[in-house]
Amino acid sequence: MTVRGAPAIGVTGAYGMALAALRSSEPQLSDIKAELGEIAQKIGGARPTAVNLWNMLDRTLDLIKGFEGHVDDLKAELLKFAHHLAEEDVALNMQLSRHGAELIEDGDHIVHHCNTGALATVDYGTALGVIRMAHEQGKKIHVYVDETRPRLQGSRLTAWELKQYGIPYDIITDSSSGHLMQMGLVNKVFFGADRVAMNGDVANKIGSYMLALAAVDNNVPVYSVFPMSTVDAKIRNGKEIEIEQRDDREVLDIALNGDIVVPDAATALNYAFDVTPNRLLTGLVTEHGVLYPPFYEKLDKIIREGI
Amino acid sequence: MTVRGAPAIGVTGAYGMALAALRSSEPQLSDIKAELGEIAQKIGGARPTAVNLWNMLDRTLDLIKGFEGHVDDLKAELLKFAHHLAEEDVALNMQLSRHGAELIEDGDHIVHHCNTGALATVDYGTALGVIRMAHEQGKKIHVYVDETRPRLQGSRLTAWELKQYGIPYDIITDSSSGHLMQMGLVNKVFFGADRVAMNGDVANKIGSYMLALAAVDNNVPVYSVFPMSTVDAKIRNGKEIEIEQRDDREVLDIALNGDIVVPDAATALNYAFDVTPNRLLTGLVTEHGVLYPPFYEKLDKIIREGI
Repeated sequence: MTVRGAPAIGVTGAYGMALAALRSSEPQLSDIKAELGEIAQKIGGARPTAVNLWNMLDRTLDLIKGFEGHVDDLKAELLKFAHHLAEEDVALNMQLSRHGAELIEDGDHIVHHCNTGALATVDYGTALGVIRMAHEQGKKIHVYVDETRPRLQGSRLTAWELKQYGIPYDIITDSSSGHLMQMGLVNKVFFGADRVAMNGDVANKIGSYMLALAAVDNNVPVYSVFPMSTVDAKIRNGKEIEIEQRDDREVLDIALNGDIVVPDAATALNYAFDVTPNRLLTGLVTEHGVLYPPFYEKLDKIIREGI
Repeated sequence: MTVRGAPAIGVTGAYGMALAALRSSEPQLSDIKAELGEIAQKIGGARPTAVNLWNMLDRTLDLIKGFEGHVDDLKAELLKFAHHLAEEDVALNMQLSRHGAELIEDGDHIVHHCNTGALATVDYGTALGVIRMAHEQGKKIHVYVDETRPRLQGSRLTAWELKQYGIPYDIITDSSSGHLMQMGLVNKVFFGADRVAMNGDVANKIGSYMLALAAVDNNVPVYSVFPMSTVDAKIRNGKEIEIEQRDDREVLDIALNGDIVVPDAATALNYAFDVTPNRLLTGLVTEHGVLYPPFYEKLDKIIREGI
């Protein structure tokens, strides 16, 4: 949990592989290949929901598998490849942010969930990248930053980033967005994705599903924003996605005005993600443009033609 | 905000009137009547969303208006009347809890929002009274207590009460209930009400609307539980209900593991309640039984026949 945000986790995985190679004392190419294969399994098992990690690890493993030459050259190649993936992540974020920014109009009030900005990616961001791009294009926007319990990525990170970019915002509790929509105060919803099924179901930070439900009930468009590396071609339906459960202290260790408020020995249930069914999503914003439903064929076409 | 929970606020209003009368130095009946009329306006203006307050104040004002006799006797009458309203509140809670408990089956897993128990009423509770009654009837139940940001009435108060009653529970973040429902872990939703429109729209603690949306999307029944004094006969539609906005420090003054996490100078938007439209409610649990849609005629009949 030191690194968060699906794209940042993916690139960190590739750096983890490069680092493991540099530290390895195996002199034989076949031995270091076997060692790195085991390390990839360990790294990949650390975060079951974020698919970018496995995407990046698979690309790294492909490189390792195909490599012929000296062990030291493999080490150099792996570090170069991690740098390449990091640069690629920034370029993809800029590209998908440009596509997404076209959806935003001057005067829009936008609900944003969790953190999907420079702090969750290598740089620039996904859903927050879209918002940042619209702002840089001179559009006047206002963001309702939902706090995103339990870890408060909204009020801790997104609020901080928006302040840096000079974008006006208000923090709201996660359960407030529905009321704001009922009052006609919200024009659009943007959030990221941790894993996307081929049918367009989106696993993302817990609360995305209820936010999307509220948006649909009030005819507010909802967009999930992600690079195509977030799509899991092996998963057809969001129901197949494994959802991480986390330590209940994340929910219980909370203080208001300095006072711990939860009774001793209280227990909590802490799922980190949920799945927003494709029927609730207006569009998916990717580096290939905004995709509209039905999503399956469009995602499949992009993947078949090579991301 | 020292007293919370619509029924408790209502009875407190009646005690406030009795206290004001006892403290009054007006010797003339007409003067003390005028003074108490002004005090009722002040007390009533303190909490715009909770209607029980005005219901109790109106009943107290009726008593004052019709009173003939010595000023001291009026003072005694007002204190007696406040005691009567307190006893009535407990009796009504027991009655509506018995009706509501019939909806709960052995093995049910229930989501409960905010606090609606002995700490929110004079005693026993409304939605939490229903849950408590089912438990006292020997039904095995499990409660998912949503924390209810920003003031955490769920994790602070409801969790504490459930522990006293020996009812098993887990605290969840407000945005988790949708995911639990998608996984088939929830059988019923119960929450209270702060003001009910004649069409059955329910104003209640912020987050009730999104919780009801998630329940309906997963075919989970949703019940709002309240005494008839919560119904505002002057309001036909929930859209007419004024929603309190509160200090944004309630949202911003939050710490995780002892660390303040929100950036300096961050701003928040803090609506205390929202309105759940009648179309999302399976039933309304009152001291007259469980009412099913359409609600208008049923509420109107009870009111016309005299609560």
